[in-house]
Amino acid sequence: MPQSPNDPRRRAPAGAAVLQEDVTVAIHAAVLEELAAVGYGRMSIEAVARRAGVGKTAVYRRWKSKLEMTVAVVSQAAVHGLRPPDTGSLRGDVRALLGMLAQALRHPLAAQIIPDLLAEAARNPEIARTLEVTLRAARRDMGEVVIGRAVARGEAPPGVDVELALDMIVGPLYWRLAVARADLPDGWLDSLASAAAAALSGNRGDPA
Amino acid sequence: MPQSPNDPRRRAPAGAAVLQEDVTVAIHAAVLEELAAVGYGRMSIEAVARRAGVGKTAVYRRWKSKLEMTVAVVSQAAVHGLRPPDTGSLRGDVRALLGMLAQALRHPLAAQIIPDLLAEAARNPEIARTLEVTLRAARRDMGEVVIGRAVARGEAPPGVDVELALDMIVGPLYWRLAVARADLPDGWLDSLASAAAAALSGNRGDPA
Repeated sequence: MPQSPNDPRRRAPAGAAVLQEDVTVAIHAAVLEELAAVGYGRMSIEAVARRAGVGKTAVYRRWKSKLEMTVAVVSQAAVHGLRPPDTGSLRGDVRALLGMLAQALRHPLAAQIIPDLLAEAARNPEIARTLEVTLRAARRDMGEVVIGRAVARGEAPPGVDVELALDMIVGPLYWRLAVARADLPDGWLDSLASAAAAALSGNRGDPA
Repeated sequence: MPQSPNDPRRRAPAGAAVLQEDVTVAIHAAVLEELAAVGYGRMSIEAVARRAGVGKTAVYRRWKSKLEMTVAVVSQAAVHGLRPPDTGSLRGDVRALLGMLAQALRHPLAAQIIPDLLAEAARNPEIARTLEVTLRAARRDMGEVVIGRAVARGEAPPGVDVELALDMIVGPLYWRLAVARADLPDGWLDSLASAAAAALSGNRGDPA
């Protein structure tokens, strides 16, 4: 039945070059839910499409393969919003970043999906490579923001090792939440932020 | 054919209360190899026994289930030798511990097995619980040795947060090797040891 041009249910014609944002959003959510439910190995594009309430072609119009789809969705979810507000101090920025990361890592979907993808990466070099690229981009973003600001403020030396700095901020949190699966005692994030900021701001013995 | 009491091939009679050490060693190796090859989910006690060249009863004489066997073998492999030598300084001890952990994490078997068990732990509460207990014991051992010595030497305050200290030593290394899957640049372990030791030895702003 033809719809009037003013019908609110009117959609762009199928096959249009422009991808519908609401369909993309529904597929993203479906991928994360399927990953958490069955894991990467057993997830199928059919099941994702079914859960999103769209056809398989809607998925293939966006990504060429299950791998490409997964990496795109997970990267977007992982990197999204890892630029903490400017709190005015290195310690404050580190604490804000830690709070955001802790919330992301504690999310039930992340708690299921991340270990699964890492196990897959240990057997599948293509997944390993794409995860590497994704994480490297996330690290660069976080580094530019938090460490870059600290150097600009004079709180960290210009030659500070940004990679090591991020390892010292992200590593302990990831280790504690995702590997040791221990809870965060009161004040743990504050103490880690203080210790990491102190280590970065100069009290570092130089190697050799 | 009856063997003489001096025959070097003579073994304790089958079913003896004392477990044969060489059989235990063969089973341990077989468990680690099977885990790396097929993962926890698809590993069977039959395949472990076959790889070790023993009967299934030899396995069941030692452990009641696949889970119990896996946890025992992995714990022993993980914790074995995590007591670094006394180098005379906190930084030296941390550096020695990091060297040992880096070697263990880079071992091809560990690189396959650990992500797999963590993925399993995200779906299986029994595995999660046993991994937790194992890691807690390993952490206590490392903490008593490295942080305990530092406090005894006066290099760290008596009230130092041992948990956070270990998170700051182990976390960045695990994150870099096992999650970011990045290599360790020259001097990275030295820099991390210096930064972690500095953070522990007093330049920690107190929270709140």
